[in-house]
Amino acid sequence: MIKLDDLLHLNLGKRTRLHRMMYEHGPGNGTLIILPIDQGMEHGPVDFFTDHDCMNPEYQYRLAVEGGYSGIALHLGLAEKYAPKFAGKIPIVLKINGKTRIPPADEPVSPMTGSVEDAVRIGADAIGYTLYVGSPNQHTDFTQFRKVKKDAERYGIPIIVWAYPRGSAVEKKGGRNSLFAIDYAARVADELGADVVKLNVPETSAKSRAMQRPPYDKLNLSTEEMVAKVVKSAGKTLVLFSGGGMATDEEVIERARICMEQGATGLIFGRNLWQRDWDDALKMTKTLKDIMLKV
Amino acid sequence: MIKLDDLLHLNLGKRTRLHRMMYEHGPGNGTLIILPIDQGMEHGPVDFFTDHDCMNPEYQYRLAVEGGYSGIALHLGLAEKYAPKFAGKIPIVLKINGKTRIPPADEPVSPMTGSVEDAVRIGADAIGYTLYVGSPNQHTDFTQFRKVKKDAERYGIPIIVWAYPRGSAVEKKGGRNSLFAIDYAARVADELGADVVKLNVPETSAKSRAMQRPPYDKLNLSTEEMVAKVVKSAGKTLVLFSGGGMATDEEVIERARICMEQGATGLIFGRNLWQRDWDDALKMTKTLKDIMLKV
Amino acid sequence: MIKLDDLLHLNLGKRTRLHRMMYEHGPGNGTLIILPIDQGMEHGPVDFFTDHDCMNPEYQYRLAVEGGYSGIALHLGLAEKYAPKFAGKIPIVLKINGKTRIPPADEPVSPMTGSVEDAVRIGADAIGYTLYVGSPNQHTDFTQFRKVKKDAERYGIPIIVWAYPRGSAVEKKGGRNSLFAIDYAARVADELGADVVKLNVPETSAKSRAMQRPPYDKLNLSTEEMVAKVVKSAGKTLVLFSGGGMATDEEVIERARICMEQGATGLIFGRNLWQRDWDDALKMTKTLKDIMLKV
Amino acid sequence: MIKLDDLLHLNLGKRTRLHRMMYEHGPGNGTLIILPIDQGMEHGPVDFFTDHDCMNPEYQYRLAVEGGYSGIALHLGLAEKYAPKFAGKIPIVLKINGKTRIPPADEPVSPMTGSVEDAVRIGADAIGYTLYVGSPNQHTDFTQFRKVKKDAERYGIPIIVWAYPRGSAVEKKGGRNSLFAIDYAARVADELGADVVKLNVPETSAKSRAMQRPPYDKLNLSTEEMVAKVVKSAGKTLVLFSGGGMATDEEVIERARICMEQGATGLIFGRNLWQRDWDDALKMTKTLKDIMLKV
Amino acid sequence: MIKLDDLLHLNLGKRTRLHRMMYEHGPGNGTLIILPIDQGMEHGPVDFFTDHDCMNPEYQYRLAVEGGYSGIALHLGLAEKYAPKFAGKIPIVLKINGKTRIPPADEPVSPMTGSVEDAVRIGADAIGYTLYVGSPNQHTDFTQFRKVKKDAERYGIPIIVWAYPRGSAVEKKGGRNSLFAIDYAARVADELGADVVKLNVPETSAKSRAMQRPPYDKLNLSTEEMVAKVVKSAGKTLVLFSGGGMATDEEVIERARICMEQGATGLIFGRNLWQRDWDDALKMTKTLKDIMLKV
Repeated sequence: MIKLDDLLHLNLGKRTRLHRMMYEHGPGNGTLIILPIDQGMEHGPVDFFTDHDCMNPEYQYRLAVEGGYSGIALHLGLAEKYAPKFAGKIPIVLKINGKTRIPPADEPVSPMTGSVEDAVRIGADAIGYTLYVGSPNQHTDFTQFRKVKKDAERYGIPIIVWAYPRGSAVEKKGGRNSLFAIDYAARVADELGADVVKLNVPETSAKSRAMQRPPYDKLNLSTEEMVAKVVKSAGKTLVLFSGGGMATDEEVIERARICMEQGATGLIFGRNLWQRDWDDALKMTKTLKDIMLKV
Repeated sequence: MIKLDDLLHLNLGKRTRLHRMMYEHGPGNGTLIILPIDQGMEHGPVDFFTDHDCMNPEYQYRLAVEGGYSGIALHLGLAEKYAPKFAGKIPIVLKINGKTRIPPADEPVSPMTGSVEDAVRIGADAIGYTLYVGSPNQHTDFTQFRKVKKDAERYGIPIIVWAYPRGSAVEKKGGRNSLFAIDYAARVADELGADVVKLNVPETSAKSRAMQRPPYDKLNLSTEEMVAKVVKSAGKTLVLFSGGGMATDEEVIERARICMEQGATGLIFGRNLWQRDWDDALKMTKTLKDIMLKV
Repeated sequence: MIKLDDLLHLNLGKRTRLHRMMYEHGPGNGTLIILPIDQGMEHGPVDFFTDHDCMNPEYQYRLAVEGGYSGIALHLGLAEKYAPKFAGKIPIVLKINGKTRIPPADEPVSPMTGSVEDAVRIGADAIGYTLYVGSPNQHTDFTQFRKVKKDAERYGIPIIVWAYPRGSAVEKKGGRNSLFAIDYAARVADELGADVVKLNVPETSAKSRAMQRPPYDKLNLSTEEMVAKVVKSAGKTLVLFSGGGMATDEEVIERARICMEQGATGLIFGRNLWQRDWDDALKMTKTLKDIMLKV
Repeated sequence: MIKLDDLLHLNLGKRTRLHRMMYEHGPGNGTLIILPIDQGMEHGPVDFFTDHDCMNPEYQYRLAVEGGYSGIALHLGLAEKYAPKFAGKIPIVLKINGKTRIPPADEPVSPMTGSVEDAVRIGADAIGYTLYVGSPNQHTDFTQFRKVKKDAERYGIPIIVWAYPRGSAVEKKGGRNSLFAIDYAARVADELGADVVKLNVPETSAKSRAMQRPPYDKLNLSTEEMVAKVVKSAGKTLVLFSGGGMATDEEVIERARICMEQGATGLIFGRNLWQRDWDDALKMTKTLKDIMLKV
Repeated sequence: MIKLDDLLHLNLGKRTRLHRMMYEHGPGNGTLIILPIDQGMEHGPVDFFTDHDCMNPEYQYRLAVEGGYSGIALHLGLAEKYAPKFAGKIPIVLKINGKTRIPPADEPVSPMTGSVEDAVRIGADAIGYTLYVGSPNQHTDFTQFRKVKKDAERYGIPIIVWAYPRGSAVEKKGGRNSLFAIDYAARVADELGADVVKLNVPETSAKSRAMQRPPYDKLNLSTEEMVAKVVKSAGKTLVLFSGGGMATDEEVIERARICMEQGATGLIFGRNLWQRDWDDALKMTKTLKDIMLKV
């Protein structure tokens, strides 16, 4: 796992803010576990149909604070409205772009919902930017990211890139979770200047492999090997893995273990945590944090 | 119903202006009843074919003042031309974007017709922004809203978002008035940073439900339950419900009662008020204000 | 007819310039007769195929000055090149957007050919903006108009909006000269903040009515009634009517009479004046001015 | 032929620079002969396949200087790289937009390759702007031109508009060299505020006429008459005619004679000059200059 | 080969930085050999599937430093992250635009990934800009380049243009590596104001020639002749040739020899160097440098 001290290029603001998240909050020791609550924007309220009240963002806020996360990731509206009473207790990762899933997503790009200046204004410790790697709309996306990158450099705010392969062309080349696509996304994040990159754990199948570009079409790797590969492709960009939809306890734990063992800096697990009821969520949080420190 | 005092995040300008509308005008006690007169832009003069002269915006202005509304919502041209003689007597909600209904609306977005600076210049107490949630043009819409949001924050002007699910993709997923669509719109408004959101009262039918995303396709709720749900999805965003086209007295009253009982902050009813002749309009205004205070 | 003194909202610059055109030039008494010479841009030189030399803009300039018009309307190039020798003798209405008619006009929008600052620089008394109401390109058009409106407000220059229903959607709903379309255009100009609006005289036919939105499909009005209706829809926006292509003396006079009797502030007649030879043009000018003062 | 002294509207910078080109360089006496070397951009190196070395822009530079031209027209790269050793010896017309001919040209617009500020910085005496009159992309083109016009006015740099009818709509209405198209282009240049316009000599054929708008479809004019007509349509804009592809000595001379006799201010002939070898090019230059002074 | 001293037009900043690369680093004597490591962005990690660890950009950095290159070319992310420990040891060519190869490339344009200001900030000695000559998107590309060119002029940073013929129209006219296309690209770079241009070595085939524009369709040149021709077409723009995909030692050496003998200033060879293992890569580097100095 990369150490913050290895990243000589970070300016003082970025280093200070990353230190806060990697050592002063969360499991510590250079790891990151971030609780995202941006699914209401991305998916609609469908993810909140649980027996407990996870529709109210205070649930996630309380969980992030009491569970001792490294940060909570959310859009400007939720940050402004729900953060005040938790000010200083939990680092904020301000998601500054996003979209609904209603219109077609053949050529996706996430419009801005906030800005680096907003992040400074509300005291956030990082910004989150969703980059749809491979989208036919990449010109708009890269151009938009450029502005974010410039501002983030100026203000010393670390950039976490949600590097998501998406769009019609990705689907034709093995799909959004293929090793080809995620490996490419990891490298793009590194080359564009992400400080941290959020990736999905690659999945593999004979059908997908057959669609991927050579030499990926001949690579039949285990999940461990795939995770290790994309971590390496991300170079000096810290890697976080996402949790995806709700899974069993065993699956969640196994996923976390693999990712951490193969060099990830941490996790961004959302639904697998806050879709649990309070006690269960806190318990799973503790389990994950233990795994993160054990590796 | 949310109290203004619960909204700790509002800056001084927003708080002052909302206080003026929620306590010093209208029914008071934290409620809002706003009279919109932007239908000439959105629908053309078709809504003004009544026996009394509602084509002349002075009719609506007089009604708003004499009826004691919390505010009147209209575009810049009408505000500049008709407000001077009513200055200070009725808060203005400046609609700052809008469109005609003539061209196709498969990928709608409402271009700017005013600005936050205009609102400051004319002494408005809020701005109104129409967001077509789910439109294939959401990139343009969100980007445009970002600028509005930034300016509104800077000038301390509350933002009322007309959160309207619209566009070809919405129609395929149950329609603009489906619970799925309005529930999503409520959450988007909350996440994007609306201060107040205007929603339609959701409607339900077997046909629409069958088209909605799970688990909405299995939800068969009463109007009361649907209203309660979307109010909850709007979180810390104050909710106003719209009145739609002309209805019977009973329907209008029933709609107002349900909305207020289920947690709404107020109403934006237009045609159902100013399409009535003078005495009838004043009487219905009083009836609605009474309902709002009774809840 | 609206009096300038009724328009309390106009700022000092606008009021001064309108006063110059409405009382110090032209027929006076609050009327406006403006000579447009922008047809070379909009139609090409086809309108100049007459026996006398109306291709040379000096013809129109001389006519405007000697005929005693309220103003001459033209694009920046013609203003800069031909105005110097007539400086101060005739108010200039600077057309600041326009287009050729060569490419398809299904989704029209008129790009800028000048600016409000140009109008200030050359001493113009108003600017002219062509708004294609109902065009599928209305987002571009409204956005462009916003900038013009903002600048005009700042510099105190009155805005005359050429409010033309145009584009594929308009044609499907009764056509550009239908009452539905022109009535809508009048209201849009009022809501967007035009100071003066130029409209075509509505035309009616059973075929067009059948295509118009209810209740327009049932309205079978006389020209007088249609003119009165759109003047009313324009609210506090002064209305000028256009002359259209070359017509007989009787038609021109009749059109002017009807428009003025039904509340118009004036006329923008071009081809029907400068396509006449010198003496005839001056004579018709006098006839029209007499009609305008008689009403 | 229009005299510079007739153009009262030109500001001091424009007048000074035009004077330099019209009286101090070239044939003088108010004429202009400009050598263009922008064909490498517009056509690719195909025009340079001659026995002598016309690929090296120094050939054209030497020809312009030794032949005593009024100016040399070229893009920024060529100006910066080849002008230094000829500084002060030949006025530069900086072409500030251009394009390759590789992609389809159904909706052409020439992107910027330089700016008015570049023209000031390198000491150019005019800028050249290519306007594709009638292109479906005219909104982009006009908007881009607006910025150029504004800057040129501010810096006192004359604008030479290459007014080229182009695009699918032009081809359907008689073609790019039809009288209809060029006549329209001349007028558009005048209305948009060109100081000088470069036009092609109109061509005529029964087939093209049949496609042109009335009354052009009935006009069967000689070349002399067509040239005279478009010069008149250009109004107070000085007219230069282009030479087109390589022609015989007789054709080149005849073309020059007709243009000058019918009121043109000058010529922009490129390939017909620099595709000739050195002695021939100088000789033809002298012949053309003699014709220009004789008229 | 062009000498730096022949390029009188270069400003002091450009001259200083080019001198550093052409005389103080690399083979010297006015040559340039640049190691590019932007393939991860352009192709994905597929180029890094070798036995040695060329996925880690430190490999290329070490090779560039120890091999004594004139510069290393890469995007901002890699520059920021990997350059610090090599600061001052190797000139940086900051690639400031780029794209992934995932979406369709019929109308390519490379969005910005950095800026000229970034180049100044990180101490780069040149910027690299990819221009897709002939792309249907050339308006966006040229416009974007204009901004880069303006900034580069202001800051005195040399511009290396990767002039790549691309897009559907290029493919129809003989293909991206045809003499027609590359010759055109060389000229466009010269006219737009590139300081250095990177070109592919043209390839020829009967099939491609048949598709090219006259007179290219009749030109059957040797590689030497084609290289000489495009170098000449680039005029006063220094020419670098690219290496393309992995080739045999003989092919690489032959390519380098031909290019240098026909007037190129240098080479940008990437995969043919860093896909070799360490000793082999250093050896080939030395071989190439010897060839460059011999010519």
